[in-house]
Amino acid sequence: MLTHPDRLFPVNLEIRNLAKSLYKEVKNLPIISPHGHTDPSWFANNHNFKNAAELLVIPDHYLLRMLYSQGVSMEDLGRTPSSKKANIDYRAIWKTFAENFYLFRGTPSSIWLNHVFSEIFQITKPLNLSTANEYYDLIEEKLKKDSFRPRELFKKFNIELIATTDEAYDPLHHHQKIKETWDGRIIPTFRPDRAIDPNHEEFLNTIERLNQITNEDTHTIEGLLKALKKRRLFFKKMGATATDHGPDSAFTCSLSKVKMQSILDKSLKQNHTKEEAKMFQGSMLIEMAKMSLEDNLVMQLHPGSFRNHNKNLFEKLGRDIGADIPQPTNYVKDLKPLLDEVGNEKNFKLILFTLDETRYSSELAPLAGHYPSLSLGPAWWFHDSPEGMKRFRKMTTETAGFYNTVGFNDDTRAFFSIPARHDVARRIDASFLAELVLEHRLTETEALEVLKELTYNLPKKAYNL
Amino acid sequence: MLTHPDRLFPVNLEIRNLAKSLYKEVKNLPIISPHGHTDPSWFANNHNFKNAAELLVIPDHYLLRMLYSQGVSMEDLGRTPSSKKANIDYRAIWKTFAENFYLFRGTPSSIWLNHVFSEIFQITKPLNLSTANEYYDLIEEKLKKDSFRPRELFKKFNIELIATTDEAYDPLHHHQKIKETWDGRIIPTFRPDRAIDPNHEEFLNTIERLNQITNEDTHTIEGLLKALKKRRLFFKKMGATATDHGPDSAFTCSLSKVKMQSILDKSLKQNHTKEEAKMFQGSMLIEMAKMSLEDNLVMQLHPGSFRNHNKNLFEKLGRDIGADIPQPTNYVKDLKPLLDEVGNEKNFKLILFTLDETRYSSELAPLAGHYPSLSLGPAWWFHDSPEGMKRFRKMTTETAGFYNTVGFNDDTRAFFSIPARHDVARRIDASFLAELVLEHRLTETEALEVLKELTYNLPKKAYNL
Amino acid sequence: MLTHPDRLFPVNLEIRNLAKSLYKEVKNLPIISPHGHTDPSWFANNHNFKNAAELLVIPDHYLLRMLYSQGVSMEDLGRTPSSKKANIDYRAIWKTFAENFYLFRGTPSSIWLNHVFSEIFQITKPLNLSTANEYYDLIEEKLKKDSFRPRELFKKFNIELIATTDEAYDPLHHHQKIKETWDGRIIPTFRPDRAIDPNHEEFLNTIERLNQITNEDTHTIEGLLKALKKRRLFFKKMGATATDHGPDSAFTCSLSKVKMQSILDKSLKQNHTKEEAKMFQGSMLIEMAKMSLEDNLVMQLHPGSFRNHNKNLFEKLGRDIGADIPQPTNYVKDLKPLLDEVGNEKNFKLILFTLDETRYSSELAPLAGHYPSLSLGPAWWFHDSPEGMKRFRKMTTETAGFYNTVGFNDDTRAFFSIPARHDVARRIDASFLAELVLEHRLTETEALEVLKELTYNLPKKAYNL
Repeated sequence: MLTHPDRLFPVNLEIRNLAKSLYKEVKNLPIISPHGHTDPSWFANNHNFKNAAELLVIPDHYLLRMLYSQGVSMEDLGRTPSSKKANIDYRAIWKTFAENFYLFRGTPSSIWLNHVFSEIFQITKPLNLSTANEYYDLIEEKLKKDSFRPRELFKKFNIELIATTDEAYDPLHHHQKIKETWDGRIIPTFRPDRAIDPNHEEFLNTIERLNQITNEDTHTIEGLLKALKKRRLFFKKMGATATDHGPDSAFTCSLSKVKMQSILDKSLKQNHTKEEAKMFQGSMLIEMAKMSLEDNLVMQLHPGSFRNHNKNLFEKLGRDIGADIPQPTNYVKDLKPLLDEVGNEKNFKLILFTLDETRYSSELAPLAGHYPSLSLGPAWWFHDSPEGMKRFRKMTTETAGFYNTVGFNDDTRAFFSIPARHDVARRIDASFLAELVLEHRLTETEALEVLKELTYNLPKKAYNL
Repeated sequence: MLTHPDRLFPVNLEIRNLAKSLYKEVKNLPIISPHGHTDPSWFANNHNFKNAAELLVIPDHYLLRMLYSQGVSMEDLGRTPSSKKANIDYRAIWKTFAENFYLFRGTPSSIWLNHVFSEIFQITKPLNLSTANEYYDLIEEKLKKDSFRPRELFKKFNIELIATTDEAYDPLHHHQKIKETWDGRIIPTFRPDRAIDPNHEEFLNTIERLNQITNEDTHTIEGLLKALKKRRLFFKKMGATATDHGPDSAFTCSLSKVKMQSILDKSLKQNHTKEEAKMFQGSMLIEMAKMSLEDNLVMQLHPGSFRNHNKNLFEKLGRDIGADIPQPTNYVKDLKPLLDEVGNEKNFKLILFTLDETRYSSELAPLAGHYPSLSLGPAWWFHDSPEGMKRFRKMTTETAGFYNTVGFNDDTRAFFSIPARHDVARRIDASFLAELVLEHRLTETEALEVLKELTYNLPKKAYNL
Repeated sequence: MLTHPDRLFPVNLEIRNLAKSLYKEVKNLPIISPHGHTDPSWFANNHNFKNAAELLVIPDHYLLRMLYSQGVSMEDLGRTPSSKKANIDYRAIWKTFAENFYLFRGTPSSIWLNHVFSEIFQITKPLNLSTANEYYDLIEEKLKKDSFRPRELFKKFNIELIATTDEAYDPLHHHQKIKETWDGRIIPTFRPDRAIDPNHEEFLNTIERLNQITNEDTHTIEGLLKALKKRRLFFKKMGATATDHGPDSAFTCSLSKVKMQSILDKSLKQNHTKEEAKMFQGSMLIEMAKMSLEDNLVMQLHPGSFRNHNKNLFEKLGRDIGADIPQPTNYVKDLKPLLDEVGNEKNFKLILFTLDETRYSSELAPLAGHYPSLSLGPAWWFHDSPEGMKRFRKMTTETAGFYNTVGFNDDTRAFFSIPARHDVARRIDASFLAELVLEHRLTETEALEVLKELTYNLPKKAYNL
């Protein structure tokens, strides 16, 4: 068996038994996935997936990064400069992965993948070089079945809702098609990073596309804001309930419109300074917050990733190949200008994430435990892991409680891993609560109530679902 | 039962049993409370407290912050601009609190309050909206009794000593009255923040009050230092053994007297820069340290709180409403100028606190484990909690040992919670030590000795009591 | 018994039993010590050690720091200004230490020393003032035996290899003598800190010594680089497989040779600025990395210690008396220039250490889990302790896995403590793995394989041994 029914529960029998009994009550609750990166075209077209390598390895930056760190080349993992995309040998990629699967011992990737192998593909043998072909063939065969198409799996996975992440200028055709042809709830999320960060390599392109799609003069700050407002309303009409922002830092500031225009002018010629770009982005974040106050789209802030840290790889292969590195992040000072504007508004919601765990107990929990507009997103990305989740609860609960957190996000493009990821969160939360009960810090009834909130109700409430 | 006798002890039976047996030995030791914020007038006048809301909710910033974060208005919690203080409906406030008490699940507030309800008021039902009135009536009735007056409770709580916190210009009339009329040991602590921070809104006022009370020309740096020296001696005469300092950061620096005078001149006209204020305060901290070397008042340093982070609330309601947020703090560089002056003096004592737990293992424990003048205050404020205390011990003990720490501080204005808070510390320390014993890192005899030190002897020694 | 056979294993019986059975399989594997500070003259001359104080107390900065922090003077510990070195009373020092040994409760020093007392000297009574003389006599007597000489103990301790740390200009005479007269593997490590940091008090002296020993004009940047290259090759010829670097921070930068020459010119007159020294050192680190790419010496980076924090003690007694304090360290930005140059090279190896544990999960594990050249050194110095090791594994494994770490380093000058230190690491790793197995995150077979890697194979592989 690749997945033990008691996995992730504490070893102490008393805690384990209580954790299991709590977990049992939420195990089968529907999955709410309010922040993720699945491709809406999957659900729009409902085509079958192709093979194990294309489905599970090539797009997974967690896997790429670890394999690359141990000397496997990006080419051997199917990540080649776009000029060379011709003949990818998927089976060879899978074998390379299988041979190196031992590298993932102790990581969440091994938990997620073993869950996928075992629960979705009913495989019982461990993956290694000697079972690689067998795995590949079996998965390929299953993927051809109707029951393994995206819409069928969505139901099978017991998913109630998935939010995707979409560019500000995205016409949302796939979402439109889904709405027209299927009852599965796939909603977009408005992510305008490229429109508000003058340093983004797609900034100019994005300004032009927004111009075209909205008929607003996006070369003026007023026009750009109007364009974004229009797009937000369009997203909202298409079902969106949230926006998402992924700046380098949580820096915000209040520039005058005149100053913003002056930076925008420079940015359109790309002769702004780094500092100006930061100020512009920081001011735009406050503008986004003010729009949220009006249109009630929940604002998500995911700062603190040093994107594309590996210069050579970025130049050769572009983004999203596992070379983003968390960096120290400040919230107390950086968010103050935004909070001074809208922090006390009950109709404004801002969900904060961090890659810098050191800020859980000294900045994030205290902020979320005070401002009515703030709540804490779950342990994120590198910290979406058993130990990461435990640290999140241990370092935030005593100051922010449970009710200023928003339940779990899977934040993933790896559709097949969604049930695994939510299952991990449910097990870890159940275990955390079980220990509180047995240390007499909470009653069992309270623990069960809290666990249900964390699993199902809080995400719906936090994201206006 | 709201409080289980085994609460907070680890679930593992071996550890639990040993922890219980260690705890039993210190459970009834007298409480030493060398750093707190109770109001000396309570003990001077010995009036009865009034009702549950006024006693337990309105002054408790831990409660205010959490309730506010979940949408309860400050007005509904009895915190209104002073112009509107007229008719407060205490019972309504209590009901609002009771209805929202579930928000505190997993927080130390729920542990402390359930202890108060159960151990002091003998209540056994959980607090919620349906029991709110019953609670309110019962508490009101008990509070009317003679046995529930401050002095009687002081004895009942088995408190040996409480230190209050007092402004530099405080005439200490209440302390005087206590001395003359009662044998309970309530001593003042000298807290001159307002006199040394030119940015404090009470700075000018404080300079004038010090002028009046000491007859020193506090507009000159020499006069101000003389005035502070006089006040320290007065506090010492009144029983004080310590000073307390709560700057934004731990920054210290050595300015010449000429330079200090020049900043003081500007500060008196309030046209100093932010940087100048920081330099002035940093130099004054060194002056305070040098005075401590002379008068042997123990110096306490509590840096790292971003006070009054919520601008709108501060403007409406002022300080201490739960909007102070911890921020990153540096000790290694910031304290070096002070340590260069007095760090090696055996007659100088500086007790360091932090809101930035990330500095426990990399700065604070190493500093306290080297400098003879330094010791570590307990887990503070947001970290005065079971998990916070565990992190404190786990991250400081291996480098600083136990004997460079000073036992527990309750740091509270919430008089009724003092036994609860000390009890939590005793349980957590007993549990920590029990695990060390059972992992054969300490003998049981050693553990018991250490626990008694942490509970009773170290606080007395550290604070010269 | 001073050492319990089950020490450091978790209390839970299931975990303990599995940890014990895993530990049993690696307990007797030979010790690989690829980074340490033993004195090669010990092994070259094989003289007997003298007494307990000289052997165990005076050179141990962990002991000095703690004793000093509690008021013991450096003089009473045998650390006097060199002018006064005359009559040291070793027995008195030992008694002072014994009397204060209780201060080390809960620290790794007590674990290491009790191991030395018990396993090497077969002592069973605890050390305190009343047993001090008995200890002193017994240890003195044993140290006179042939079997207690360095080479004999090296074999007895089951050490396969020790790397020492040596100045760039060291002629390595002791290593030469060892090679010629003994089969024990003691290899040098190239540590050029003094040659690349213009702020080091030995910088000028080092430049001159390198000049003399290499016949290169070390006053020119080209000459200095050539000299260092020559010395590296000499070290390599003498068995070295690694270099070691201990800058204040991990800062690196790419200066032109012209700019480097201009700073070198100033540095030789010691009229460089602090910033220039930092830039010079940062550029030299990149040069060192490029040399590693050529000569395959593994590069070790140990940043983040604020050396000689205690100004007065430094002026009186010099370095290495326990006054180095960890400070916040950044890797993501500071290392980028170096990684941009050589980070993707498979033939370049850089092992990173930290004193700032807050960077484990947000910088170090992500960097090591991506760059093929990077791996993580073990928990270091202040964090070379049971809790420090647990934090290291808990905060790095989920992102970097086990295979981007390099096993244990003892990093010690305390020769007698080497078996104790490696034993602690083996126990903690076994315990960590046992818990993963019992939480069904790893199979028992996998855990055993990983433990053997961590104990023996990974260090050899990481250090090219």
